[in-house]
Amino acid sequence: MQNVRIEHDAFGPVQIPEDKYWGAQTQRAIGVFGAGREQFPPVLLHAFGQQKLASARANRRLGALDAGLAKVIEQAAQELADGHFDRHFPLTLWQTGSGTQTNMNANEVIANRANQLLGQPLGTKAPVHPNDHVNASQSSNDTFPTVMHLATRLALGRDLLPALAHLHAELQAKARQWHDVLKIGRTHLMDAVPMTMGQAFASFAAQIAHGIERVQGCLPRLDSLPQGGTAVGTGLNTPPGFAEAFCEELSLITQTRFTANPCKFEGMGTHDVFVEVSGVLNVLAVSLTKLANDIRLLSSGPRCGLGEMVVPDDGLTSSIMPGKRNPTIAEVLAQACMQVMGNHTTVSVAGASSLFELNVAKPVIIHNVLQSISVLAESVTIFTDKLLAGLEVNHAVLARNVEGSLLLATALNPVLGYDQVARITRKAADEGLTPKEAAVALGLLTAQEYDAYVRPQEMVGG
Amino acid sequence: MQNVRIEHDAFGPVQIPEDKYWGAQTQRAIGVFGAGREQFPPVLLHAFGQQKLASARANRRLGALDAGLAKVIEQAAQELADGHFDRHFPLTLWQTGSGTQTNMNANEVIANRANQLLGQPLGTKAPVHPNDHVNASQSSNDTFPTVMHLATRLALGRDLLPALAHLHAELQAKARQWHDVLKIGRTHLMDAVPMTMGQAFASFAAQIAHGIERVQGCLPRLDSLPQGGTAVGTGLNTPPGFAEAFCEELSLITQTRFTANPCKFEGMGTHDVFVEVSGVLNVLAVSLTKLANDIRLLSSGPRCGLGEMVVPDDGLTSSIMPGKRNPTIAEVLAQACMQVMGNHTTVSVAGASSLFELNVAKPVIIHNVLQSISVLAESVTIFTDKLLAGLEVNHAVLARNVEGSLLLATALNPVLGYDQVARITRKAADEGLTPKEAAVALGLLTAQEYDAYVRPQEMVGG
Amino acid sequence: MQNVRIEHDAFGPVQIPEDKYWGAQTQRAIGVFGAGREQFPPVLLHAFGQQKLASARANRRLGALDAGLAKVIEQAAQELADGHFDRHFPLTLWQTGSGTQTNMNANEVIANRANQLLGQPLGTKAPVHPNDHVNASQSSNDTFPTVMHLATRLALGRDLLPALAHLHAELQAKARQWHDVLKIGRTHLMDAVPMTMGQAFASFAAQIAHGIERVQGCLPRLDSLPQGGTAVGTGLNTPPGFAEAFCEELSLITQTRFTANPCKFEGMGTHDVFVEVSGVLNVLAVSLTKLANDIRLLSSGPRCGLGEMVVPDDGLTSSIMPGKRNPTIAEVLAQACMQVMGNHTTVSVAGASSLFELNVAKPVIIHNVLQSISVLAESVTIFTDKLLAGLEVNHAVLARNVEGSLLLATALNPVLGYDQVARITRKAADEGLTPKEAAVALGLLTAQEYDAYVRPQEMVGG
Amino acid sequence: MQNVRIEHDAFGPVQIPEDKYWGAQTQRAIGVFGAGREQFPPVLLHAFGQQKLASARANRRLGALDAGLAKVIEQAAQELADGHFDRHFPLTLWQTGSGTQTNMNANEVIANRANQLLGQPLGTKAPVHPNDHVNASQSSNDTFPTVMHLATRLALGRDLLPALAHLHAELQAKARQWHDVLKIGRTHLMDAVPMTMGQAFASFAAQIAHGIERVQGCLPRLDSLPQGGTAVGTGLNTPPGFAEAFCEELSLITQTRFTANPCKFEGMGTHDVFVEVSGVLNVLAVSLTKLANDIRLLSSGPRCGLGEMVVPDDGLTSSIMPGKRNPTIAEVLAQACMQVMGNHTTVSVAGASSLFELNVAKPVIIHNVLQSISVLAESVTIFTDKLLAGLEVNHAVLARNVEGSLLLATALNPVLGYDQVARITRKAADEGLTPKEAAVALGLLTAQEYDAYVRPQEMVGG
Repeated sequence: MQNVRIEHDAFGPVQIPEDKYWGAQTQRAIGVFGAGREQFPPVLLHAFGQQKLASARANRRLGALDAGLAKVIEQAAQELADGHFDRHFPLTLWQTGSGTQTNMNANEVIANRANQLLGQPLGTKAPVHPNDHVNASQSSNDTFPTVMHLATRLALGRDLLPALAHLHAELQAKARQWHDVLKIGRTHLMDAVPMTMGQAFASFAAQIAHGIERVQGCLPRLDSLPQGGTAVGTGLNTPPGFAEAFCEELSLITQTRFTANPCKFEGMGTHDVFVEVSGVLNVLAVSLTKLANDIRLLSSGPRCGLGEMVVPDDGLTSSIMPGKRNPTIAEVLAQACMQVMGNHTTVSVAGASSLFELNVAKPVIIHNVLQSISVLAESVTIFTDKLLAGLEVNHAVLARNVEGSLLLATALNPVLGYDQVARITRKAADEGLTPKEAAVALGLLTAQEYDAYVRPQEMVGG
Repeated sequence: MQNVRIEHDAFGPVQIPEDKYWGAQTQRAIGVFGAGREQFPPVLLHAFGQQKLASARANRRLGALDAGLAKVIEQAAQELADGHFDRHFPLTLWQTGSGTQTNMNANEVIANRANQLLGQPLGTKAPVHPNDHVNASQSSNDTFPTVMHLATRLALGRDLLPALAHLHAELQAKARQWHDVLKIGRTHLMDAVPMTMGQAFASFAAQIAHGIERVQGCLPRLDSLPQGGTAVGTGLNTPPGFAEAFCEELSLITQTRFTANPCKFEGMGTHDVFVEVSGVLNVLAVSLTKLANDIRLLSSGPRCGLGEMVVPDDGLTSSIMPGKRNPTIAEVLAQACMQVMGNHTTVSVAGASSLFELNVAKPVIIHNVLQSISVLAESVTIFTDKLLAGLEVNHAVLARNVEGSLLLATALNPVLGYDQVARITRKAADEGLTPKEAAVALGLLTAQEYDAYVRPQEMVGG
Repeated sequence: MQNVRIEHDAFGPVQIPEDKYWGAQTQRAIGVFGAGREQFPPVLLHAFGQQKLASARANRRLGALDAGLAKVIEQAAQELADGHFDRHFPLTLWQTGSGTQTNMNANEVIANRANQLLGQPLGTKAPVHPNDHVNASQSSNDTFPTVMHLATRLALGRDLLPALAHLHAELQAKARQWHDVLKIGRTHLMDAVPMTMGQAFASFAAQIAHGIERVQGCLPRLDSLPQGGTAVGTGLNTPPGFAEAFCEELSLITQTRFTANPCKFEGMGTHDVFVEVSGVLNVLAVSLTKLANDIRLLSSGPRCGLGEMVVPDDGLTSSIMPGKRNPTIAEVLAQACMQVMGNHTTVSVAGASSLFELNVAKPVIIHNVLQSISVLAESVTIFTDKLLAGLEVNHAVLARNVEGSLLLATALNPVLGYDQVARITRKAADEGLTPKEAAVALGLLTAQEYDAYVRPQEMVGG
Repeated sequence: MQNVRIEHDAFGPVQIPEDKYWGAQTQRAIGVFGAGREQFPPVLLHAFGQQKLASARANRRLGALDAGLAKVIEQAAQELADGHFDRHFPLTLWQTGSGTQTNMNANEVIANRANQLLGQPLGTKAPVHPNDHVNASQSSNDTFPTVMHLATRLALGRDLLPALAHLHAELQAKARQWHDVLKIGRTHLMDAVPMTMGQAFASFAAQIAHGIERVQGCLPRLDSLPQGGTAVGTGLNTPPGFAEAFCEELSLITQTRFTANPCKFEGMGTHDVFVEVSGVLNVLAVSLTKLANDIRLLSSGPRCGLGEMVVPDDGLTSSIMPGKRNPTIAEVLAQACMQVMGNHTTVSVAGASSLFELNVAKPVIIHNVLQSISVLAESVTIFTDKLLAGLEVNHAVLARNVEGSLLLATALNPVLGYDQVARITRKAADEGLTPKEAAVALGLLTAQEYDAYVRPQEMVGG
């Protein structure tokens, strides 16, 4: 038997476990939605702490909140931001589409903690009231999306962008390291003309560089916050200047520059910017899929595959084939990308469900966006540190493949013309010859001429 | 400082927390992939217990496992199935695409527990060896997909199908209850001709009945298991008859009839059946989206919306608009559907990544399929019990809407012809008249004739 | 200057090119929506002809249409079904979500043709009126979805199912042909244990067999038609028995058994069945992607790839690399699958937009479903006839790969146990040995013992 | 019997209709892939003309092409760009994943036309050779993606961006026009607090403004071209400076600034930028879905819906309900958005299929991107001109809804506190009172006080 306290709201009394900081609306929400395995991640709860802290400071500055109450609210909000109350957010993410229950949960936890700091027991709702004071000048309708923006911005800045920069640096290092290593190029999966391994990795690096640019390209819209719109976007019940004061305070708290969305309606009634961010994550997923797949295929083998690369041994093996080594980490990255591509569909469908003054798919949107960011950041980091850093090339296989390729003869196009070169490659293919042998046999060139024109190391460009 | 024991595998020694039942490969996997927030749900771990139990029994029957070892393996597997070892599966789902690490985790936990039952300390790998005995006649490559089939089958049978049947029954009850309640039909969101509220709910019920049929239609393929294919599908290192014996044992254990897939390659190298199941869940998501949206729109208001229905009060309200009641539960259902639609994209992309003898997107596939099942089952249950059961109609609004509709005049088509009726509705619309007034004003019918032909309660069909 | 005739409707006069069979509503629709490149495919227009023919026959049977008028309507409808009027459907598919304009286009073309058969000039609307007679007992709201069902059913039955059966037969033929051809199995793209090429193709065949089952599994719901629901589903303005009579007539006309949906509301207000069909096509796309990719990878080379198979030469080559042969046809199939996967998202989103008594995304749904069917049917046919039929194996490469594989040693698990076999494969990998050499060098087996236990041709199962 | 000419290539003779400008490779491709309904749109063919023109000019400048040949090639390319040869591109888009056949089609048409200008009959391949001269310094592998970039850039610049600017201007005009028109705000579809119709339209305008920004944000990457990479990205067989010279010429021809991608590999082996562009179109689809849905719902009725707006009459009506007016144009826009969302899945899956040095899903990618652009541009234009421009508000309904709303009482929060206001709204809801009546009845305020605090026109913010 758990000890409980009784709280009251407009609907009557509610029993709450006595050691919990949440209040009546949270407890009712547990009754309605249950408390499931799937909860918002800590980054969102901590962002709520920062949002409430910035709100209290802005309210105090603008005279909308008594300084004494503001002081304890700010302390409690800071504690929430610092992760002290993660266990006091019992709700599943499958709740009202406005995220109201989690906003009320934050209001109630902060109110209880603030009152406790003032010597009151939990559940008094006085002197600090969760709606009138903690939520002052706010509605769930502007607060929850503001927290969505904030948590996404922080997750991108703290987790994903550094992971991408790290990957990019490692790819560039490999591009330099293998600058002169010839390999056969492949188009349509078929042998084509030579290039270098460095060029392949420079191309991966270019993809990631563009991916970083794309993430950064979203930030101006992501950093534009709807806070101050309150119930529908009009700013009802906010003091003049609240939105701007809030953004100033939040920028100070987070050391990140946030601005007030001049059209609050757009930031509450729609979440186009999350569809945009998710779209950019989707491009990253597409880029990283190629990276994972190219490396898996190039390192396939060890004896019956392409075998041009070797992934480092991670000590994991098959349950039945002893000693088998698999590209496990590349598979994690590939699966993360699949998840991100599907999350993007969810976010797009959820974004398209916007109606009138409130998009009511906020929880599912932020859940998917934050999951996409975290799985990408984590899998990119593992991939960079545990696979890419130890990746090696197999020089013998690379050299054998370059030498064997029929299409070295493409270098003869400017000399012999397309139709004569076609005769060479066709003869070589049909008779199992090298293109040199075929060219000579056809009487089109001497061996010396062939060697002068066809020089793989000069076919790879600048 | 946590106490540890030392285990050895082919790669050398590994330190493992001394109270944990997992072994070297699991510990190495933690080192490679980390231990994240996102883990497989218990239903998958318990299915592993059942799979290992059935395997041990089949091995014993076929003489592939010593009866004494089988006995303790079976006991340990049963304990896993019963949920005793959930805490001993530390791995995140973001692991090798074959799920090998979780299979090895299960092998190690069972081996350790079995050896413990025989009086050995953890970590001995003897007399019960995780690979040679617990995994006997198995590979991760046939075991993990078998567990995917099993967990999905159980989650459908235990959770989703009953939830759908419950919803269907409640929709039919409403259809009966409102059998005679007239309402205006709406096409293109515009007023059309009359129907009954019962017809609307019978249509929802028909959607769900078809959804149940679709789920059941997948079961023959879902119940067909690849166990027995081992490494690539050939059944290497299995005793003759293993696949069939395994299915018999598993059918007994689960009271569900499973069959051996005659083409193991198909069940390991591809997961088309999960794309199929996910597609069926996607249809349910589409059906349930309409249900959630129709009810939200019909209950919109209370004073400025359609207002034809009233959803029960759940005690949750706005953080700024006191007393505001929102269709929170319908929003949960709608968001669940969005998640399922996106998960379906993930599963489809992951299914399409199948190459050669092994699809290596198994963890992300099963994660998404099981999440889709659980969010649907849970949100459908809440919706049925807490919204639908208490849903009411507003008779006054319904009646007013039927009476006001211009298109009652459609009933006159057989009498006057399309072009004359068009004159009536146009005049009524332009001049703010009822269609009856317009028909009389145009001299096309007397009021008595109009009343004889246009009888809303007779326009709704059988 | 084009000659025109003048027609009138409730909105006033309209100019129509004098040689066109369409009428006022079609002409107005051109004015509103334009006449774009993207039109409904002929199969849909011909299905409209069959639907109007069946309606006229049913109306005649039930006394809802004068026999003389019915006769000419039936003749005109038959001509539409036979493709005589394809050029008289100028509208783009981007029209009203109910497809009303194309239904009216059909009504107008048939009315004009029927009146012409009775000696009237185009545009008289008498004695046959497009709404009162051609559309008698119908609404666009039940007619257009009925035509969607019909066109889809016919396209599946005439085009896709035969194409799949043909592919399946060819895959089975290859499975028999290569029944004894050993190849290395690959898991995680890495060398695994041996199998046969026949097994690989039997697995492809199993995928397609299941794909056919899945298509057939939808047919009961697809063959259930909403005709008879008219405006909202109630059947207003239909004679008793119309739905059933219509289905009987249509079944006779098409030699395919159609049934009346007992809940017309479900068949008009929702299109769940098209989401279902699209989902099944999506599974096929997933299956066929694997087929296209496996064959492309196995035939990669000719000298620097896996090179186990050779695709037939189609005479197409590179614009710069003379003589280069690419798996062009497999790429067509792969791209078709990508299109189908995206079309499935469109159909799912469109299905989820159902509201109240009418889903108003009918044109976009049927466009995508029919395109998915046609691109699959066509690319499968080309793939079967022009690639698969001429596909060959490279016996030398296959044999070399089987012999070189390290994991042949897996066959020793039952003899030596997992941990000893791990020593063998590790030593072989590290020192470039065959597993046999490693086993002997480790003193675990003699060469004779090794040869007795490790027999690739016996490792491939039944 | 069609007259034919005979051409030869490396595979032997081919029969070609004598009046066609295409050559042997195109004719062979018809034989392989058939000639289907689905072809590339003219914008792509014309872009090919511009690409070949810029290539010839660059080759001439750099001495890679004889001036006399260049002159006729340039004239022929200009004619292609001007649309003179659209009928000479018979191929379906379902071809090789590199688009090689359409590049060869362009090479052959231009070579034949150039030779014709020099007095030769079709089919001579001399003096102008399709590969050696028209395709000089080019491969399909850099040419086709360059044309993809170019066609997309032109379609965005000519079609979509102007359509969006036009829509944005009209939305802003409406925002100004209805600046002072009060309406009830709606959250969760339920009555909330007042706002203005101008604010709603300013929010739509903000969405579109952001959409335009997003399109423009992609342009730097879209304007970066891979031309000059030839076969795999190395630039084999190009004269030094070709990529830069090409971009200069193309910029002059198109009056749009294009730049050479410094990493050709990235622009040929991947199409991340098309996934990005498609993602931005997907955001637009999401934004426009809200616009279409809000307007459809606000104009629902005319008598049983929300009825706050009236869409202009387009003269189209129901086939059974005479005089029924439907929001047909909004449905076109909504359906266009669904298509774009699905096309985005296709493009994402196709982008993720990139392997090694060539993404071989180019045709399906560009088909979907160009279709998304055209359906958006066309439906946005129709929506702006034919719906939005004539959209009207129903002042009587708007006023009645504002007055009736319970949640006007929210304005009392700062005066009475949240919990007292909750008593007012609850009493008003339960007893059918206005909030004013409830407030007075509860003794919380006098009627005069209520009127002083609750002033809808002052609740809508700045």
